[in-house]
Amino acid sequence: MPTDAPASVADLGEFGLIDRLAQTLGPSANPNLVIGIGDDAAAWLPSPRCMTVATTDALVAGVHFDLATTSWEDLGWKALAENISDVAAMGCRPRYALVALALPANAPVSGIEAFYRGMRACGERYGCSVIGGDVVRSGAFVIQVTLLGESLPMDAGPDRLLLERSRARDGDAIAVTGPLGGSTGGLRLLLGQATASEARVAEELMNAHRRPMPRVQEGLALVEAGVRCAMDVSDGLLADVGHICERSGVDADLDASRVPLYHGLEAVFGQEALRLALTGGEDYELVCAAPPETIARAGELLAERGLGPLSVIGSIVPRTGVEPRVRAFQSSGVPLDVTVGGWDHFHGG
Amino acid sequence: MPTDAPASVADLGEFGLIDRLAQTLGPSANPNLVIGIGDDAAAWLPSPRCMTVATTDALVAGVHFDLATTSWEDLGWKALAENISDVAAMGCRPRYALVALALPANAPVSGIEAFYRGMRACGERYGCSVIGGDVVRSGAFVIQVTLLGESLPMDAGPDRLLLERSRARDGDAIAVTGPLGGSTGGLRLLLGQATASEARVAEELMNAHRRPMPRVQEGLALVEAGVRCAMDVSDGLLADVGHICERSGVDADLDASRVPLYHGLEAVFGQEALRLALTGGEDYELVCAAPPETIARAGELLAERGLGPLSVIGSIVPRTGVEPRVRAFQSSGVPLDVTVGGWDHFHGG
Repeated sequence: MPTDAPASVADLGEFGLIDRLAQTLGPSANPNLVIGIGDDAAAWLPSPRCMTVATTDALVAGVHFDLATTSWEDLGWKALAENISDVAAMGCRPRYALVALALPANAPVSGIEAFYRGMRACGERYGCSVIGGDVVRSGAFVIQVTLLGESLPMDAGPDRLLLERSRARDGDAIAVTGPLGGSTGGLRLLLGQATASEARVAEELMNAHRRPMPRVQEGLALVEAGVRCAMDVSDGLLADVGHICERSGVDADLDASRVPLYHGLEAVFGQEALRLALTGGEDYELVCAAPPETIARAGELLAERGLGPLSVIGSIVPRTGVEPRVRAFQSSGVPLDVTVGGWDHFHGG
Repeated sequence: MPTDAPASVADLGEFGLIDRLAQTLGPSANPNLVIGIGDDAAAWLPSPRCMTVATTDALVAGVHFDLATTSWEDLGWKALAENISDVAAMGCRPRYALVALALPANAPVSGIEAFYRGMRACGERYGCSVIGGDVVRSGAFVIQVTLLGESLPMDAGPDRLLLERSRARDGDAIAVTGPLGGSTGGLRLLLGQATASEARVAEELMNAHRRPMPRVQEGLALVEAGVRCAMDVSDGLLADVGHICERSGVDADLDASRVPLYHGLEAVFGQEALRLALTGGEDYELVCAAPPETIARAGELLAERGLGPLSVIGSIVPRTGVEPRVRAFQSSGVPLDVTVGGWDHFHGG
């Protein structure tokens, strides 16, 4: 760090910090953006005939992330990627992000700048610009990202070109866009709770945790193929299929032997690998449900575009009780005894 | 509180809390909203030919608000109103809000519900729906609101129907949409730092602090009248005119005797009233700059609609130094010695 660089945000002040962060982000490449950082609000022209989607997430230091296992730059990537994934899970393109940071006064300016570099890198990868935000003083370090995305252009008809949690139906096939368990496996390695004999395998797993890749192109292809139900695997496969079941009024049966495992997961974690793939969070693959012939068509479209493979892992069945039920079966037909766990920010975590 | 009501958010859990809050908010009245709370993202159809504007603010307990002087319900109103004001300051209509709460595990459910009732009341007053958000556990209580608004419909021409900070020009008149100092005066009363002899005056001042009224209709009328530069008075008049000057590359001279004082401010605070009006924050009136004939037209339009009065309080002058300079003159022509102060979340506050 140059000796004249301010060490903490308190040295720099709010407006000085915002100026530096705007420089770190650079100008937006989006020609529809009319006003970026610096006015009372950002402004843009929505794309004709497209729906706008909006999602927001709050991340708290010590609850959702730990700077002991995540660098500031990776944290910036992840904070944006997590929200991009929600937009991907709607079958939409990410466009604009607003970022509010609540920071302790001793937060290092170099760290905050690295955080914004990470966001910029992720945004450039996915065609999304950070166009505004807020920076305030706080006892806790809280990151809040709001992401705006746009759907494919709609025709006049009633069909919504979106992926919704509520549109799974009895008889639908359930499929995922890629292998699972990598992020949780990588976190275990980062925490020293496991070791990998191959350095490259370890690096891949840790990268799955540090720089997750939201499935934007996959989500768009699913919509184009006629799929209308999906979400992203953020809380863990079983929990997230449970969210779909809850909103759709159905249950789900999964064939555990068909759940794709992240490369190297079995080599490092042995028999535990399957459990990591079923319950580990933050993989950000998409899990979708649609009639089997629609899933087959979607698989072909993804393959044509060099995406996927789309793996069928189970099927939607009628609701049997009040609460949704997601069962994972072994190849023997015996249900696996896996606790959904999921991620509840107040009870669990 | 009924005996079966959960006392804290930890008793209820994240998903239980989100369900209750969605019930508190009720359904949106906006027919363009396609998906509200409960999916990966909310979705809506933007109004044809309108720009979308987006703003976000973070509020931290102990820094931006104090539950000793603000009820949970008023806090909900203010958190939304503050962001609605940013949209009003762009000359736009507020449409959709996303709210992320970082909460201590012992936060009372009854308080959080009252917070959402306050947001709902403010949203209904201004035609704006809370359509999504996030609730997470945190050591500090942080409220983050993101607001999406829409401009007036644009014609094909190059003129942007927005109010921007950067569009003040030498010779412009500066005007405000209403009286100032009420919020700061009310806060002083709430803190017991002053007393009002008339109970009704005290109540009005305290309400100005507790339930500020953003100037959405005023902003739209300014745009319609041809005004293109404004912002909301949130940091204090001198500081906010300074923000306009900074972004527009100009200076400003204000006639302090023409700055409208909030009703009762002088009766309670005597000679200090003017300083409160010049430097007090959170009034949420709009301050605008435009050629005098445009300001005159805007004043007539506001009067026709029962808004305002629009008070001319000064003029834009050429920039003389590197930093913007805002001077307030007494009627004698002598500059007032008022420190801008402003609101810097790291240095000051």
